[in-house]
Amino acid sequence: MKFKVSREKMMKALQRVISTIGNRSTLPILGNVLIEAEGAGLKLITTDLEIRISTGVEAAVDEAGRTTVPAKKLLALVSRFTDDELGFECDERHHATLCCGNSKCKLLGLSADDFPADTEFTPVRRLVYKESDLRRIFSQITYAVSLDDSRKVLHGVLCACKDNLVSFVATDGKRLAVVEKLPESFEGTEGEVIIPLRAANEIKRLADGEEKITIEIGDKQAAFITDTVVVTSKLIEGNYPNYRLVIPSRFNSQVSVPTQAFLAKIELVSQVLSDNNSYVVLSFADNQLKVQAASAEIGEGLAIVEIEYAGEPIEVSFNPAFLAEPLRAVAVDHITMNLNDGISPVAIDGSDGFLYVIMPMRNR
Amino acid sequence: MKFKVSREKMMKALQRVISTIGNRSTLPILGNVLIEAEGAGLKLITTDLEIRISTGVEAAVDEAGRTTVPAKKLLALVSRFTDDELGFECDERHHATLCCGNSKCKLLGLSADDFPADTEFTPVRRLVYKESDLRRIFSQITYAVSLDDSRKVLHGVLCACKDNLVSFVATDGKRLAVVEKLPESFEGTEGEVIIPLRAANEIKRLADGEEKITIEIGDKQAAFITDTVVVTSKLIEGNYPNYRLVIPSRFNSQVSVPTQAFLAKIELVSQVLSDNNSYVVLSFADNQLKVQAASAEIGEGLAIVEIEYAGEPIEVSFNPAFLAEPLRAVAVDHITMNLNDGISPVAIDGSDGFLYVIMPMRNR
Repeated sequence: MKFKVSREKMMKALQRVISTIGNRSTLPILGNVLIEAEGAGLKLITTDLEIRISTGVEAAVDEAGRTTVPAKKLLALVSRFTDDELGFECDERHHATLCCGNSKCKLLGLSADDFPADTEFTPVRRLVYKESDLRRIFSQITYAVSLDDSRKVLHGVLCACKDNLVSFVATDGKRLAVVEKLPESFEGTEGEVIIPLRAANEIKRLADGEEKITIEIGDKQAAFITDTVVVTSKLIEGNYPNYRLVIPSRFNSQVSVPTQAFLAKIELVSQVLSDNNSYVVLSFADNQLKVQAASAEIGEGLAIVEIEYAGEPIEVSFNPAFLAEPLRAVAVDHITMNLNDGISPVAIDGSDGFLYVIMPMRNR
Repeated sequence: MKFKVSREKMMKALQRVISTIGNRSTLPILGNVLIEAEGAGLKLITTDLEIRISTGVEAAVDEAGRTTVPAKKLLALVSRFTDDELGFECDERHHATLCCGNSKCKLLGLSADDFPADTEFTPVRRLVYKESDLRRIFSQITYAVSLDDSRKVLHGVLCACKDNLVSFVATDGKRLAVVEKLPESFEGTEGEVIIPLRAANEIKRLADGEEKITIEIGDKQAAFITDTVVVTSKLIEGNYPNYRLVIPSRFNSQVSVPTQAFLAKIELVSQVLSDNNSYVVLSFADNQLKVQAASAEIGEGLAIVEIEYAGEPIEVSFNPAFLAEPLRAVAVDHITMNLNDGISPVAIDGSDGFLYVIMPMRNR
């Protein structure tokens, strides 16, 4: 196996696949990147047995072949070489020699035969989005994914294709974030699957352009395919709760609130709180939204957001982090707060397919 | 006590003094900043009993007075307010009210009478440097300060004024870094003191301009005085070892080496090492400096730096971190490596007053 490649392109390709490489794995081969050289290029593949990332690099292949070398060490060397062209050669004992300018390094690899094989699957549906749209969808909901070990089905993002709608959903039981967004194209059957949080995070990182991304969904796996990268992930098995039951069917009051000003005031007044169980109080009355907080240890805070609201006064309390997160994630200037009273669920509507439902805290 | 101040200026002043505030102290008052309002401005002071930082802010003082409030909370609020002018008012129970635009926060403070008093001292000598010079001096040596708890005198930077020379020195017993640099002015007696590492690090952070900085040295304390800030620090007591004994008086070979290329090669080949006790081997021969490393677990590395050296071949091994640190710190394009053989101390000379002495590793 022998090839020449642009050092810069090799570095960027390795950076795309490096994130599945943990700090130490019980299986040494999982710390390695599989390099397949054939035709006019290379394929670089890493996996942690849950997520598999594959990417291509154009290269001048003198001798086709496959090997694996320690991924982080390879990236460290490729980043620190200083010349443009990188030569790579591997012997039958999987010793890889890298040449770049007047520097030469050898890495001890492992046989490509020991690298976990790709598992084929037959997609039951196929969705195509713009990369930036899918990145935004995941960014708007992933903070609400549960980190609680007892409910595995909540450890991912639901992707539900039903009644000609596609919904992406995350919840931890205390708040619910939903984005409804039709794909640019759709094939296959209706149904729903749970995409692990880590796969969603990889997509946020890798779908960094404006090209198309295809989601191929199978029974137990999904693949996310862009021009440069394929991310294959196991799906979370089990039944996601019926999130539609959580969304109130009607509200008494709808108030438009400027997103950034509201967020800034929540971040300001919550500085006087002393622990995570604290709350901020929102008071809607007389065309003002008062944001208030207090703690016996630190002090008090009051900030005012100008709104248009002349209805009955409503006072409602929230965990400030749960209120700030959707405001940081939405892309709209104004959100709509949908309210009934001080104890019923409140919905934040982004009017662009984004909906967030949160339970008030009962502090009195 | 009552004043109005520019929010921006107050924020910058708080950022200057915030670094002495630890995460939690046994003495709550040490988490507070002392605010003294008088005449045309404020004085903000923090201390951790070892280092004291004081800075001024111009303000419109309506009612003079002194109080203390939690420093991190005050900075958090001042950073998150959105209007330009900040109003501050404090009652006799040390409750401080901050007003900014339509936001209002209250912080619970503590009496200024409980804040540790400043201890006066009489300087025995006074040195004046340009801020950028003193910042560079400390940056070039502080990485060599010992972190070993058993030798307290090595926990700081020696400042020795002797024989019309001023030397700043740091060592951990394995390597020694020295900068000799005459101040712009000098008054007082000769002598030497040990400045704690933390004080040196504060100066690197705070002496960020091109103005003058005055070092006033007393028996047990030193003060660093700039236009905007005064840092007072306790000195480390004890006798610093006679570092001059470590510097060889003569060398057989002197080799000029390009700093950045040498550093890049060390950083490259040391990637194949697997633990901290590893070494890189330098070979000087035939107008080449070969930088080599190897480990049984990862592989081998070889890189070449072009030099002018036609003398007897010399091979010498070093801890790569100890070799890289001075190269990152020096400000010159070429350093001079002063060598005798493969087992004697080697000196790196920056030809600008910087000298670094390092013992080779005996790996064979």
